[in-house]
Amino acid sequence: MAQICKKLISPLKKINRLNGSVQVTHTLRAASTLVAGEPEGPTVKTDIPGPKSRQLVAELNALQQAGAVQLFADYDHSLGNYLVDVDGNVLLDVYTQISSMPLGYNHPELLQRLNDPHNIKTIVNRPALGVFPGADWPAKLRDVLLQVAPPGLKHVTTMMCGSCSNENALKNIFIWYQHKQRGGSSDFSREETESCMVNQSPGSPSLSVMSFWGAFHGRTLGALSTTHSKYIHKIDIPAFDWPIASFPQYRYPLEENKRENDAEDKRCLAEVEDLFAQFSKKGSPVAGVIVEPIQSEGGDNEASPYFFQELQRIAKKNGAALLMDEVQTGGGPTGKMWCHEHFNLDGPPDVVTFSKKMQLGGYYHKPDFKPPQPYRVFNTWMGDPSKLLLLQGVLEVIRRDALLDLVQKSGEKLLTGLRSFEREFPQLVHSARGRGTFLAITCPSTKLRDDLVARLKKKGVQTGGCGELSVRLRPALIFTPKHADIFLDKFRQVLKETK
Amino acid sequence: MAQICKKLISPLKKINRLNGSVQVTHTLRAASTLVAGEPEGPTVKTDIPGPKSRQLVAELNALQQAGAVQLFADYDHSLGNYLVDVDGNVLLDVYTQISSMPLGYNHPELLQRLNDPHNIKTIVNRPALGVFPGADWPAKLRDVLLQVAPPGLKHVTTMMCGSCSNENALKNIFIWYQHKQRGGSSDFSREETESCMVNQSPGSPSLSVMSFWGAFHGRTLGALSTTHSKYIHKIDIPAFDWPIASFPQYRYPLEENKRENDAEDKRCLAEVEDLFAQFSKKGSPVAGVIVEPIQSEGGDNEASPYFFQELQRIAKKNGAALLMDEVQTGGGPTGKMWCHEHFNLDGPPDVVTFSKKMQLGGYYHKPDFKPPQPYRVFNTWMGDPSKLLLLQGVLEVIRRDALLDLVQKSGEKLLTGLRSFEREFPQLVHSARGRGTFLAITCPSTKLRDDLVARLKKKGVQTGGCGELSVRLRPALIFTPKHADIFLDKFRQVLKETK
Repeated sequence: MAQICKKLISPLKKINRLNGSVQVTHTLRAASTLVAGEPEGPTVKTDIPGPKSRQLVAELNALQQAGAVQLFADYDHSLGNYLVDVDGNVLLDVYTQISSMPLGYNHPELLQRLNDPHNIKTIVNRPALGVFPGADWPAKLRDVLLQVAPPGLKHVTTMMCGSCSNENALKNIFIWYQHKQRGGSSDFSREETESCMVNQSPGSPSLSVMSFWGAFHGRTLGALSTTHSKYIHKIDIPAFDWPIASFPQYRYPLEENKRENDAEDKRCLAEVEDLFAQFSKKGSPVAGVIVEPIQSEGGDNEASPYFFQELQRIAKKNGAALLMDEVQTGGGPTGKMWCHEHFNLDGPPDVVTFSKKMQLGGYYHKPDFKPPQPYRVFNTWMGDPSKLLLLQGVLEVIRRDALLDLVQKSGEKLLTGLRSFEREFPQLVHSARGRGTFLAITCPSTKLRDDLVARLKKKGVQTGGCGELSVRLRPALIFTPKHADIFLDKFRQVLKETK
Repeated sequence: MAQICKKLISPLKKINRLNGSVQVTHTLRAASTLVAGEPEGPTVKTDIPGPKSRQLVAELNALQQAGAVQLFADYDHSLGNYLVDVDGNVLLDVYTQISSMPLGYNHPELLQRLNDPHNIKTIVNRPALGVFPGADWPAKLRDVLLQVAPPGLKHVTTMMCGSCSNENALKNIFIWYQHKQRGGSSDFSREETESCMVNQSPGSPSLSVMSFWGAFHGRTLGALSTTHSKYIHKIDIPAFDWPIASFPQYRYPLEENKRENDAEDKRCLAEVEDLFAQFSKKGSPVAGVIVEPIQSEGGDNEASPYFFQELQRIAKKNGAALLMDEVQTGGGPTGKMWCHEHFNLDGPPDVVTFSKKMQLGGYYHKPDFKPPQPYRVFNTWMGDPSKLLLLQGVLEVIRRDALLDLVQKSGEKLLTGLRSFEREFPQLVHSARGRGTFLAITCPSTKLRDDLVARLKKKGVQTGGCGELSVRLRPALIFTPKHADIFLDKFRQVLKETK
């Protein structure tokens, strides 16, 4: 413990890199926590959900489908990495609202921002951003969203959530693709303008988007056609007949399975090439490829930098766009702002979508993806300036407190711990993997995985499952090595008690 | 003027009906405005967009497609019904951010709510509502959203925006439809669970949704397949092959064209019946019909109560759901909370979607539309409690200030004025129509319509076009007869100067 404190207190880390730009940060002041007043550790008083949560679930279920609710939270008393529930249980939150709370709960910097009358007005006067943006909107986009843009991307379109970011990014890709097909002309034929009104080609063209087995890109009907993680997301909903390629399934540890994993990359890439040809032949050419840098809902499936480099090359060769879906990976949890920065790609992806930790949805894109006409990617709100306000606070704290470095530090500690569990409990967990604190470990059965997640919660640790077999860690960026120690201690107890 | 003031000051109106529930309201205190400090009238100092707006458009256009921007607003100084732009122009806003600002700008009641520390925490701690809702969420749904639910609907699912509300409501309808096909069983076959993962039937069934010519239901790929208002929304985007029926095109004034309009209703309804049969025959049965109570983007096209009553009957007869899209009509502008309340339907629609004036998206639905399993209609955020907070304030002001009555009063004045213009300028405008302040008037050409809207703006009045030929009025609910006088005066000047 003393060692951890020393690490965080030491004045070594005065320079912080956030996305390439070097920034002087002040020395980390806090010892084991970055949020003053945070609980020392979890405390569990009742079952979870406890009696009050169960009562509220019944109330909610009378109004809507509430079967996914795990507990009711007391957001007034939650703080930092600790989620407090209505029964007074204090949970170390290693899941953070499905990976969407970058600074945990009630971060003082964010509360502070809402003391400002201008900011309050930003919340009350929500504009139709595409038509009547506020005076500070271009500056806000430049100073907030573009400051952390993936290297090489200088355009951004804002949206509301992950699904609609992917959905509209796909629309942008279709528009770009057809614009190319017209040789860059902005003229539409009468046949096109008329046929699209009745959902027929050529105006509504038979274009496709390639996605991967195990992918999750959202649940609106376009995004859902590219989602293949669990049947419960998809069943009974009509879908587009679009190509689906295999995503690498690696053996772990990576360093001991290099030959097999390289072959797996090649197998998947060959499928991608093949599907391009197949769908072109059947009259539904692939306009774009959508892929997560780490398949998250699908089970924290990772692929190598080589896989992504080749995927980018193949997409380009086939005249298709590469959309990197960073809705869950973006915003810092892998130790870089964008996970694809780990891949050493040959230039940026064509489009990068975001949401969750970024507080609002949207996508960065190359300039030629800007639609040639207005009103093509459009809706009433086009995002929400009040969320950009929060993001501005988040990014300032990330810089000030050197949180991307902290993510790497805490992540190393977590991964080292998970690897030791693989050795200690080989029949219970394997394939520890991930980047930064964006980590996962896999169980031999869904039953065991669900059981581990449930018993972790009984010990005061909120985690989440992903895929059929994995436990995923999605802590906030303010998760310190001290929190990692608490998590690892509880996880080891749970594993031990399983024996 | 004295008369208007008298009307509003008079203590007659102590009882207000909001959605059937009778409430005692205190007497309207304000004379000609409900927001203290509101400007006396519009003032225009520069071209619109003025030099500062034009500079900002250039800045924004370097980052994204900014071709739809009309002006940059100064939201700190906008107030009530008046939108102030960055060049200091003060516009009477009869368009209100595409109909999404129920109380205009900087309403004191809403600013006041954000002085409260609990409310500030609601903004900062955004939960994944489907998994970890806050303690007050069921009560908030009951006390806010369900207080104004369409009569007969007691379930509600929250979302983020209009498109995703319609998109998820359609998903709900597909789920309901297939559940019926299974005879109410919740078991899926292995063939279904496996085929849906690759976007094929029977798991991804070939079901369709019927929509109408001229409809606008949003821009995500499902909603866009039901949208048929302008080609620029749809071109180059793949679409589902779903049925499209004619929506009535009436002659105005209605009372002089009863026979033709009745025949028009019957023609459209026969098409609906015919499409049900056609799509059933071709193996793509209609699971639901989506319709706006007034087609808004499509040109403020109205249909009779008879049309909607029959539509409901035909949908029911064919085992399909009726989805009433109240994204633009909901929240009071027609003088009732929900426009379909004007139709005297045989029971509520199966699903009613909302967004815009309601501050957050979502849909009300009948109990049998609650999906039998969790995680089927789901996403990370599932709405936004901070918007419900604003809606709570909005609804309290609607009650307190008897705004639905005001809408009727101001609407009558506006419609009377528009009708007088039809008589005075028959070659320029016709077909004045609408309910409450949700009104429109039509020009003989798009050129003239655009010219009227532009010249109204030069006189300090912000309106909007809809369809190819119409001017639409979408004032806030705090638009008083005094504001109607200003609008009518400016509009008459513009029409006179056109002669």
